[in-house]
Amino acid sequence: MNHKLDYIFSRRSIRKYSKKEVSHTLLTDLLEAGMAAPSAVARDPWHFIVLRERENLDKLATILPHGKMLHQSTAAFVVCGDINRAHDKKESYMLQDLSAAVENILLAANTLDLGACWLGVHPRQERMDGIIKMFNLPEGIIPMCAIAIGWPAEKPEARTRFRSECVHIEQW
Amino acid sequence: MNHKLDYIFSRRSIRKYSKKEVSHTLLTDLLEAGMAAPSAVARDPWHFIVLRERENLDKLATILPHGKMLHQSTAAFVVCGDINRAHDKKESYMLQDLSAAVENILLAANTLDLGACWLGVHPRQERMDGIIKMFNLPEGIIPMCAIAIGWPAEKPEARTRFRSECVHIEQW
Repeated sequence: MNHKLDYIFSRRSIRKYSKKEVSHTLLTDLLEAGMAAPSAVARDPWHFIVLRERENLDKLATILPHGKMLHQSTAAFVVCGDINRAHDKKESYMLQDLSAAVENILLAANTLDLGACWLGVHPRQERMDGIIKMFNLPEGIIPMCAIAIGWPAEKPEARTRFRSECVHIEQW
Repeated sequence: MNHKLDYIFSRRSIRKYSKKEVSHTLLTDLLEAGMAAPSAVARDPWHFIVLRERENLDKLATILPHGKMLHQSTAAFVVCGDINRAHDKKESYMLQDLSAAVENILLAANTLDLGACWLGVHPRQERMDGIIKMFNLPEGIIPMCAIAIGWPAEKPEARTRFRSECVHIEQW
């Protein structure tokens, strides 16, 4: 592992958090990092619903089967795409753009000593429907994932997951 | 902009490169960073074709309408997904996983003073077909994007693209 890239290797999914709240300023830093991601034809088709209220975090936890940690996390983002803003209105571009933004947010959280975990939503229809209903989302706004955020109460080791069989030199 | 996150804000798409070659060691560092991205159910459904031969870079440039810079770049990755390895064989999960890996690679390139540019492939069928044919990809291996890589011959400023209208507090 090249140690200049430790900020990438030390990013791990954090599912245990302390009770300390995350400031709105830090959450805005994370969102600014997310919106610095590249997007197809610079359409930036993303939206972020910021949750810090316990009632809302608990409700989101009931919608996401693997989202139990939201009962402990003190913040979360729900990441949505605007399909009508996405390049050529293509779902693929929208998912790619949003995912790059989410990865920026996860790395930024790690850099700011926060813990975060990507919680899958799209393409699970029941999870998407639950979020659309919870927030009464307008037509064309598609929830892709949630991100649990908090001050970490665990510290997994940095690691590599390099697999040489995924690397093909000049040809398949 | 929180300066701890400058490595994110200073990542810009680089389309002009010097003639200096990129070492295989540095390219491996980038791939290791890519493979450190999270993936749905840790399926890591990604593959990377590494190009440094001029003939192959030039050929790829002819397949990608916005890939003219590949004639100058001294390296590139073609990023593919294995749909049969992706969580539940869902294209959405595959695209999300690969995009997080690509963003890691772009950030890592910036950190290592390299320049890189994300070149869209999926969902454009003609671009996908061109790459499938060029590399004779097996069934189920789906090209998502290419990344042009080289030593930068331009240095755009760090910037924010924060838009407050994308941020929704507790509700849509």
